Amino acid sequence: MTSFGLAVIGAGYWGPNLIRNAMATPELRVEWLCDLDEGRARAVLGHYSTVRATDSYERVLADPAVQAVAIATPAGTHAALVRAALEAGKHVLVEKPLTPTYAEGERLVALAAEKRLTLMLDHTFCYTPAVRKIRELIRSGEVGEVRFVDSVRINLGLVQPDVDVLWDLAPHDLSILDFVLPPDVRPVAVAAHASDPIGAGRPCLAYLTLWLSSGAMAHVHVNWLSPTKIRTYVIGGSRRTIVWDDVNPAQRVSVYDRGVDLTAADPDTRRAALISYRTGDVVVPALPEREALRGVMSEFAAAIKEGRAPLTDGESGLRVLALLEAAGQSIDNDGKRIELGGGFGQ
Amino acid sequence: MTSFGLAVIGAGYWGPNLIRNAMATPELRVEWLCDLDEGRARAVLGHYSTVRATDSYERVLADPAVQAVAIATPAGTHAALVRAALEAGKHVLVEKPLTPTYAEGERLVALAAEKRLTLMLDHTFCYTPAVRKIRELIRSGEVGEVRFVDSVRINLGLVQPDVDVLWDLAPHDLSILDFVLPPDVRPVAVAAHASDPIGAGRPCLAYLTLWLSSGAMAHVHVNWLSPTKIRTYVIGGSRRTIVWDDVNPAQRVSVYDRGVDLTAADPDTRRAALISYRTGDVVVPALPEREALRGVMSEFAAAIKEGRAPLTDGESGLRVLALLEAAGQSIDNDGKRIELGGGFGQ
Amino acid sequence: MTSFGLAVIGAGYWGPNLIRNAMATPELRVEWLCDLDEGRARAVLGHYSTVRATDSYERVLADPAVQAVAIATPAGTHAALVRAALEAGKHVLVEKPLTPTYAEGERLVALAAEKRLTLMLDHTFCYTPAVRKIRELIRSGEVGEVRFVDSVRINLGLVQPDVDVLWDLAPHDLSILDFVLPPDVRPVAVAAHASDPIGAGRPCLAYLTLWLSSGAMAHVHVNWLSPTKIRTYVIGGSRRTIVWDDVNPAQRVSVYDRGVDLTAADPDTRRAALISYRTGDVVVPALPEREALRGVMSEFAAAIKEGRAPLTDGESGLRVLALLEAAGQSIDNDGKRIELGGGFGQ
Amino acid sequence: MTSFGLAVIGAGYWGPNLIRNAMATPELRVEWLCDLDEGRARAVLGHYSTVRATDSYERVLADPAVQAVAIATPAGTHAALVRAALEAGKHVLVEKPLTPTYAEGERLVALAAEKRLTLMLDHTFCYTPAVRKIRELIRSGEVGEVRFVDSVRINLGLVQPDVDVLWDLAPHDLSILDFVLPPDVRPVAVAAHASDPIGAGRPCLAYLTLWLSSGAMAHVHVNWLSPTKIRTYVIGGSRRTIVWDDVNPAQRVSVYDRGVDLTAADPDTRRAALISYRTGDVVVPALPEREALRGVMSEFAAAIKEGRAPLTDGESGLRVLALLEAAGQSIDNDGKRIELGGGFGQ
Repeated sequence: MTSFGLAVIGAGYWGPNLIRNAMATPELRVEWLCDLDEGRARAVLGHYSTVRATDSYERVLADPAVQAVAIATPAGTHAALVRAALEAGKHVLVEKPLTPTYAEGERLVALAAEKRLTLMLDHTFCYTPAVRKIRELIRSGEVGEVRFVDSVRINLGLVQPDVDVLWDLAPHDLSILDFVLPPDVRPVAVAAHASDPIGAGRPCLAYLTLWLSSGAMAHVHVNWLSPTKIRTYVIGGSRRTIVWDDVNPAQRVSVYDRGVDLTAADPDTRRAALISYRTGDVVVPALPEREALRGVMSEFAAAIKEGRAPLTDGESGLRVLALLEAAGQSIDNDGKRIELGGGFGQ
Repeated sequence: MTSFGLAVIGAGYWGPNLIRNAMATPELRVEWLCDLDEGRARAVLGHYSTVRATDSYERVLADPAVQAVAIATPAGTHAALVRAALEAGKHVLVEKPLTPTYAEGERLVALAAEKRLTLMLDHTFCYTPAVRKIRELIRSGEVGEVRFVDSVRINLGLVQPDVDVLWDLAPHDLSILDFVLPPDVRPVAVAAHASDPIGAGRPCLAYLTLWLSSGAMAHVHVNWLSPTKIRTYVIGGSRRTIVWDDVNPAQRVSVYDRGVDLTAADPDTRRAALISYRTGDVVVPALPEREALRGVMSEFAAAIKEGRAPLTDGESGLRVLALLEAAGQSIDNDGKRIELGGGFGQ
Repeated sequence: MTSFGLAVIGAGYWGPNLIRNAMATPELRVEWLCDLDEGRARAVLGHYSTVRATDSYERVLADPAVQAVAIATPAGTHAALVRAALEAGKHVLVEKPLTPTYAEGERLVALAAEKRLTLMLDHTFCYTPAVRKIRELIRSGEVGEVRFVDSVRINLGLVQPDVDVLWDLAPHDLSILDFVLPPDVRPVAVAAHASDPIGAGRPCLAYLTLWLSSGAMAHVHVNWLSPTKIRTYVIGGSRRTIVWDDVNPAQRVSVYDRGVDLTAADPDTRRAALISYRTGDVVVPALPEREALRGVMSEFAAAIKEGRAPLTDGESGLRVLALLEAAGQSIDNDGKRIELGGGFGQ
Repeated sequence: MTSFGLAVIGAGYWGPNLIRNAMATPELRVEWLCDLDEGRARAVLGHYSTVRATDSYERVLADPAVQAVAIATPAGTHAALVRAALEAGKHVLVEKPLTPTYAEGERLVALAAEKRLTLMLDHTFCYTPAVRKIRELIRSGEVGEVRFVDSVRINLGLVQPDVDVLWDLAPHDLSILDFVLPPDVRPVAVAAHASDPIGAGRPCLAYLTLWLSSGAMAHVHVNWLSPTKIRTYVIGGSRRTIVWDDVNPAQRVSVYDRGVDLTAADPDTRRAALISYRTGDVVVPALPEREALRGVMSEFAAAIKEGRAPLTDGESGLRVLALLEAAGQSIDNDGKRIELGGGFGQ
């Protein structure tokens, strides 16, 4: 089997997960773990690893055994690191968010296209069995028309030094939304409210409202200050409603045949007659237990090999940036509704 | 013991609960159940009751044995029914919302004051052991400064003919907020978004954001279309965080000694050093199992007897109306932030 | 509609539930609530009831308007009360356990047969939508062969003055087992262990093991001292496994297509090859929300009217007594396995 | 820091966990992973490890760089492998159960003592923060006198080729019991029932009853066939009751101030007056998130270094064996109560 030489950049919170999963992926050959603090990289590798640690990104990019890099550094460094990698001819897997601004992200996507290199976003949740199943349920029509989406992602989280809660957590919710919605249903406007009740200097909790092209509404609640961990994603459909509870491993995804229907549109009929309630069974589909990052790594390797766009490509990263930027703009304008451009960019 | 003669008005969804609890309250003497459909009133009373059914509100109001009425009719009828009762010299307990407009409500409150009659709102949740405990925890200072409030009240609910989801469900969340917050912390502005994805002709799901005078933010999510029932109220404080999960009778209220603190304000110190995390114990206070409506009835009787304002008086009903009206105004203006007047009215 | 005159005997813990449900049953006409303490009966009826209170059982039995009695008194009084009622020509609904000994119960069943009167056990749980569904799933073959049954019924319960935890709680588990098992699968032996760690003078927790005629094993855990309430009934089958969690109203019954199969019986094949695991979907069937006692009352009225055995007839009460007696015998003999006679009597 | 050279024996289900945790323990220096199938050992190590794979146990034992072995092979092989290691002068950490018979285990414990080598059992659960906390709560007197213990450990488990469900799962429950009970409270007798409803050739579900020297009863339910995973350990005490729910990471241990008390022993007082109910708060103690095996490895290294008995020493392994043997004997004798000898051995 051909394998690609990979360097992981960043030995902080997420890097160790990337390197562990990369090492378990036969199509990848891990060459380096690079961190500004070489000692931290060594500590992550431990005493028994043949992977090399370094603090020199230049050395990594100069190594012809390296065909690809996986970047897990603070968001503010992404633009420069991705650009350097692409210019050195390396394929790139990068943590979300792609960059702190849409404009920077757009330039990277263009550069990758020009260089015919893979630029992939680590939208990890899109590779969970739960999200794969949800996408399948929606795109197969089983859910019917999407009527509402409600996502809650709250926990006692690390107050990040460089990003607010919106840029830290909402990329998960937004990339999942991007991934599971039917291709013809897209966000058209955003409003957001945020609060910093501890004086951290940046929002620690935020609420986003998204209007979709279908007329439906999606809502996201992200919060770093909650003492309980809740990760619930509800997708209400005209035929079924999906509830994904990610902290309940015994029953992550439930598909409810319950809902409210308008059974007729006859304006002469009395309203009460028009509404009916379904209270059918709930089905909990069996899902494999599989680490999502394993799927990220396989997809990265496969996209490189096949020269095709990965499932979570640079464009998906840009769509998330467009939403984040618009949300930030709304926060700065008292929750004003911000329309998204055709390409969601401006 | 002196007892007050009571008539219950409305034998629909909630009336049977009122009458059952009133009958169990020694200070009340139930005289009538009144409904436009007398047969429905009879059916609610059953074959073994000495309480009389009638379809004549006039007859009830004319009955000198009746000192008080409890009104559980559609919201649109409240103004006329409450007014008539007050003018007939009867004390009034009325379902939420008090009236469909703040202006109408204001006139009723004024009338009750003028007549020196009790006008009480059935803000039922304020009489649950859970909410009583939460109020006590906040007002005693145990929670510290309130940093955020997040309430979710979603279920497969009856799509109401005369009110939208906001006016149907949010009065619960807003009256609880009014009840538990320290007296000096009040809402100062509101924004709201709503959606009617089934074409019911009125919002079936809504999100409210409230700015409090302390600078904190409160958020309410109400939804008639959810296949699962969630009723969670989180009050994040600087010392403790309360999580009230009303669908978990074994553990309704949990008090978390978990949170994020800014431990110093020294601007020269690095930011990271300023933030610390508490991950202490959780305490689940023992709460009595007591039906809230029993407490409503006792308070109504006691307020009449003592000639004092009940815990959930007309003013509290007005404060809820002010919030609902402002929220509606925000919905009609793309989620614009609406400032509340000094008295929250206009 | 013909209706039967009913008297409820006993105004203690359960009597109020009986009378409330009887009053809501059109086929029944509640005449009396009888208790040795007439004041208690009056208190249960409240100030608004036309039902009469009495402390005279004789007067009730002498009343020709009474065709049936529902007995909710301490177990030790059942034999005399049931006998008197039958001899007075009244149909009888009686709380579990039928009597404190099998022999007494047998005489009552014989007397009812002789008098051609209905003798019905209030095995309430058999009338819940959950147990009806479970019986249907088993008897339709959907569950396959029953491999094991495990029931846990623990709570902080009232330490009863006249019965131990076995006779207080296990009748529920045993009557449910009797009700849902296929008719050809019957208990053939019992063993039990019990403990009285608080010195109450009678067992406060007990474990029962039952051997079924099919070779499968059933187990029951009852406990008055548990601070948490658990009511879980698992029925493992060769095709499906049912988990009934009675304290989870949102998901009482779950049907798992998960299990272990022996896929071949070839003795030459290696054992490991013979075993396979199914990890299919879980289905949560929609169940109506219906109070079980309403069903008890309807069935009682219908059995009287149609002159047929009720679903939970005296024989079912006897089968439960046989198991309880054998369990008690085992407890007294260090957990010795006690074989049940053909009729489970001996 | 002095470190000990370690070889892990067995690259099956548990071996990879041992090696991963050993590698993360600074006091240990992992030298070998040994498996009869060297390819399997290599696969576990992966492509990036400096740890050597071998299929030669002799070679491992002959290596002077190896001071200790950690044995994770099928139970039937333990006696020979442990003996060989001890005779080669190596310290031993071994999976539960120590050996398939008490007699074999006893000889190994004697041999280790004679050789002055550490013989430690991998009773993993004893090193979880939850069990450490429970032990502390019991031994500090906070729980009061232990009144009952009830453990449920059921799941869809691998039907093991060489051991039944009792020897596979119950060692967990029994070693935890051994670990947390006060030193003066010991099992004195055992009874057990088991069933093999799928024809696997060995029990797939079993129930154990243990009588403790204090008069209290403990009960264990183990089951390989359950579609749901339940791991609940309840320890009822005279002052508090502990509920440990190991599948609920957000609330593993709950301490209930709820229970039943006998408040007086006056034989002249009426019984009802003697019983009272406490329904106080529940406290959920904060527990660190720490992998138990990390603690196992640290304790193993520390015991070797300090020349002391580890927390879960050979004697604790023998006490578990005594219980398992007695339980098996009971199963073979229709659930007969089997008395344990003074040393629990014979």
